[in-house]
Amino acid sequence: MSEVYAARRTKLRERCHAVGSESALISRPANVRYLAGAAPKGSVLLLGRTEDVLVCLDPPDDRAGEGRPDETLRLQTLPGSGGDPAVAAVDLASMQGIDALGVEEHHLTVARHRAIRSVAPRLHLADLGAAVEQLRVVKDEEEISCLRIGAEIADQALGELLESILVGRTERHLALELERRLVDHGADGPAFPTSVATGPHSGRRAHHPTDRRVEEGDFLSVCLGATYRGYRCEIGRTFVIGTSPADWQIELYDLVFAAQRAGRESLAPGAAYRDVDRAARQVLDCAGYGESLPALTGHGVGLEIDEDPQLAPAAMGKLDACVPVTVEPGVHLPGRGGVRIDDTLVVRPEADGGPELLTITTKELLAL
Amino acid sequence: MSEVYAARRTKLRERCHAVGSESALISRPANVRYLAGAAPKGSVLLLGRTEDVLVCLDPPDDRAGEGRPDETLRLQTLPGSGGDPAVAAVDLASMQGIDALGVEEHHLTVARHRAIRSVAPRLHLADLGAAVEQLRVVKDEEEISCLRIGAEIADQALGELLESILVGRTERHLALELERRLVDHGADGPAFPTSVATGPHSGRRAHHPTDRRVEEGDFLSVCLGATYRGYRCEIGRTFVIGTSPADWQIELYDLVFAAQRAGRESLAPGAAYRDVDRAARQVLDCAGYGESLPALTGHGVGLEIDEDPQLAPAAMGKLDACVPVTVEPGVHLPGRGGVRIDDTLVVRPEADGGPELLTITTKELLAL
Repeated sequence: MSEVYAARRTKLRERCHAVGSESALISRPANVRYLAGAAPKGSVLLLGRTEDVLVCLDPPDDRAGEGRPDETLRLQTLPGSGGDPAVAAVDLASMQGIDALGVEEHHLTVARHRAIRSVAPRLHLADLGAAVEQLRVVKDEEEISCLRIGAEIADQALGELLESILVGRTERHLALELERRLVDHGADGPAFPTSVATGPHSGRRAHHPTDRRVEEGDFLSVCLGATYRGYRCEIGRTFVIGTSPADWQIELYDLVFAAQRAGRESLAPGAAYRDVDRAARQVLDCAGYGESLPALTGHGVGLEIDEDPQLAPAAMGKLDACVPVTVEPGVHLPGRGGVRIDDTLVVRPEADGGPELLTITTKELLAL
Repeated sequence: MSEVYAARRTKLRERCHAVGSESALISRPANVRYLAGAAPKGSVLLLGRTEDVLVCLDPPDDRAGEGRPDETLRLQTLPGSGGDPAVAAVDLASMQGIDALGVEEHHLTVARHRAIRSVAPRLHLADLGAAVEQLRVVKDEEEISCLRIGAEIADQALGELLESILVGRTERHLALELERRLVDHGADGPAFPTSVATGPHSGRRAHHPTDRRVEEGDFLSVCLGATYRGYRCEIGRTFVIGTSPADWQIELYDLVFAAQRAGRESLAPGAAYRDVDRAARQVLDCAGYGESLPALTGHGVGLEIDEDPQLAPAAMGKLDACVPVTVEPGVHLPGRGGVRIDDTLVVRPEADGGPELLTITTKELLAL
């Protein structure tokens, strides 16, 4: 794996040169992990002139899912409550004779920036912007394989839940049960707080589970994901409780399903982000739900659950092959409930069979 | 409750005047919640000249545990993916004729600071520093009551676990089981990731649960906490598995217990933070464990699990009445394991009976 991390750092170095720096200080945890293999709490990565150094508060731990630092990196730990790793990294940069350093201004706080300036007043600090986030958009097959395993775990957890009795159980219990099953099946943990929404709550994005119990006739929307080796996937499904869904439930379900399928089918290398969003959105828009739609209908996933690209009306850019994204349109009718359907897929060229669906739980409307 | 939030904002206004601002932009989520009653994701609070405004991405939700915004605040939401609430708040500040604004430089990123500057180039931005964090140190009885309920919930969850069979179960399962029980008993959720450490892992601070199973003869350290109405408490205990602890286990336990008691007993209004730390630390130091001790032996708790004060050798300041802190010394022997004992207490004057212990689970060495 060392070569992978070293190759990523080489790519970043090339980007640094473009902003006039020969070196970089990476502080955003997911970016540190991407480039170093691990991101112990508070750690920063110095891409130096003579060597790259991972500066940590404490020695890296072999904790489940935290990753292991690339062995070709030098590790430096700060003893005890030994101050700010970013400041220590800047000290190292000075010792390496570095005079221009790229930093992540979208992550670095003003106070930390000032502390860096005060220990190295002559060091030129340039903004790297989202350079590392951009590198992270296209995944390699190793990364996709972690997402695939995470998706299998989420499918398993969801499948088991569907076999159990649901009526009478609370949203909070169902969410905890799902998270336990994720871990049972080998996840590092949930990829994000599991959402279980019943009845009038159903169909809401990121609904926080409450003490409401599942009732006959409810829509039940579930959204969960597993983290596997740091990589986070997402699946969302909506079910109906009881033997026969109401007509409005079937109609709404079919509509959201059609929107989600349209989004999925538009995934292809070269497709504009906004066109994927529009494909899903216009189905709901034409049916009169345009006003209440969420700001985006999908997003990238990887080391973070919500990363670039954003599939939204004003998003700029085009999909590449090997970009994993969610497609997750939904409609929520206040007071009644609604439907969300959410898959994680990997963009693949037509020649390779088109988009690869990672979350394979059925999208038929199941009556449970 | 409105009066409480308004009074907190009045106090902060007085601090603002001290740094030359008549108004403030609060962005750190726990600080927003402290002053506004709720902190919807991405929201910021403008303490304005003519009115205070909570600027949110989406309308506040009645989600469990998220709190409700103070009704005397004006709410402003940004439609759709409508940009940065901090920038919108600065626009409002300009409309109110504000020319100097206090900001939280330890939370605001360089990029956000720049965005604010570019929309209001003449606005003077001053650093508020940790003004809100300082206000948060001393709790009112309402806040302490939330912590007390959270501690009861954590005690209940832990007590139930101790009645179950432990041998053969993994750290990860025990941790999930505890978190489920926290929610069962009414917690908003865990206050931090529950730590369960067996055998050679025992005694490590913030150990991330693994697939190791509990074995006869192990030390078992558990650290958990409940969030109740946003307030987070912490309890840690160490047990021994099997009928008869080994001599080294009893000795180590007694030692850590003595250190933890010394720390607890030194809690009093006016006691220096470092003296509380020293009281606990020197017991372990004298026994020869000085080298391997953690950087702090306790910390404040409240809306965040790790807030001011820090009970550490170099900490400056003195305890006040009504400050809740943890006292949590521990010793970990690499390869063998160790002991941590952790309580949440509220500093109270002698006349009121001295420190109030919130986490009341026994600290006898239980053999399970």
